[in-house]
Amino acid sequence: MTDIAPRRVDIVFHAVGRVRRDVREPNAPQDIETLRATPARIVIEKAYADALLGVEPGSDLLVLTYLDRATRDVLSVHPRGDSTRPIRGVFATRSPDRPNPIGVTSVRVLAVEGLSLEVTGLDAVGGTPVLDLKSHSESFDSPYRAGGV
Amino acid sequence: MTDIAPRRVDIVFHAVGRVRRDVREPNAPQDIETLRATPARIVIEKAYADALLGVEPGSDLLVLTYLDRATRDVLSVHPRGDSTRPIRGVFATRSPDRPNPIGVTSVRVLAVEGLSLEVTGLDAVGGTPVLDLKSHSESFDSPYRAGGV
Repeated sequence: MTDIAPRRVDIVFHAVGRVRRDVREPNAPQDIETLRATPARIVIEKAYADALLGVEPGSDLLVLTYLDRATRDVLSVHPRGDSTRPIRGVFATRSPDRPNPIGVTSVRVLAVEGLSLEVTGLDAVGGTPVLDLKSHSESFDSPYRAGGV
Repeated sequence: MTDIAPRRVDIVFHAVGRVRRDVREPNAPQDIETLRATPARIVIEKAYADALLGVEPGSDLLVLTYLDRATRDVLSVHPRGDSTRPIRGVFATRSPDRPNPIGVTSVRVLAVEGLSLEVTGLDAVGGTPVLDLKSHSESFDSPYRAGGV
């Protein structure tokens, strides 16, 4: 068994779109449910139009975002910013602050107009770069249990 | 309403760890359940040790991986490589081939030994760079429904 040599290789992505909504400043953790309940738009860049085929009203998607306001050198936090909760490593939380700040959030598509999706469920603020959209999958997104869900 | 100017800004991440398992070649889609049922290891780099505090046997995590064998200029596919299924945009699928090939898969932690996690549920092959681990969240990972799950 050999050790894995630490190789600091750059992994480079480009936004495929952006979140558009009025709220542009990150909210306190306790306001996230309000933000999610408020419809937002995801505008996809023209170059990726063909990737939207089959995304339609009623689709359940995972949205992957680049949390560009997050702090990347944070390794442990009080969950939800609540100092009464014991410190946990960010890999055991959903903190936006983490080494690779990628947000994963399920949304429901309300409407599709060309490159613009209206969704509910999104917790990202306006201007946030979108990295990926995926169809929701019970198999990949629910807690894994051997032998099936 | 102004258009979003296309800005091709590099978004750079670095692997926080790597998948270690014997299978190193991508499987056919129909073999994924076998791969997931077979325990695998995720080895985190020493610099991120503190981010693991609270990750323990029984934890349900989402693992975000960089699918480094994927094809990034694919925008539409036959889902699961099945040519009898109609073409869909990759944003309506879980295809590994997509502009920003980030895998999202739920796993269950079986054991933690220092920087090494033994997990089941992982569909990534050996050598795959790991971008992030997150605690599973019913709220963020289940289909979004206004008014709560």
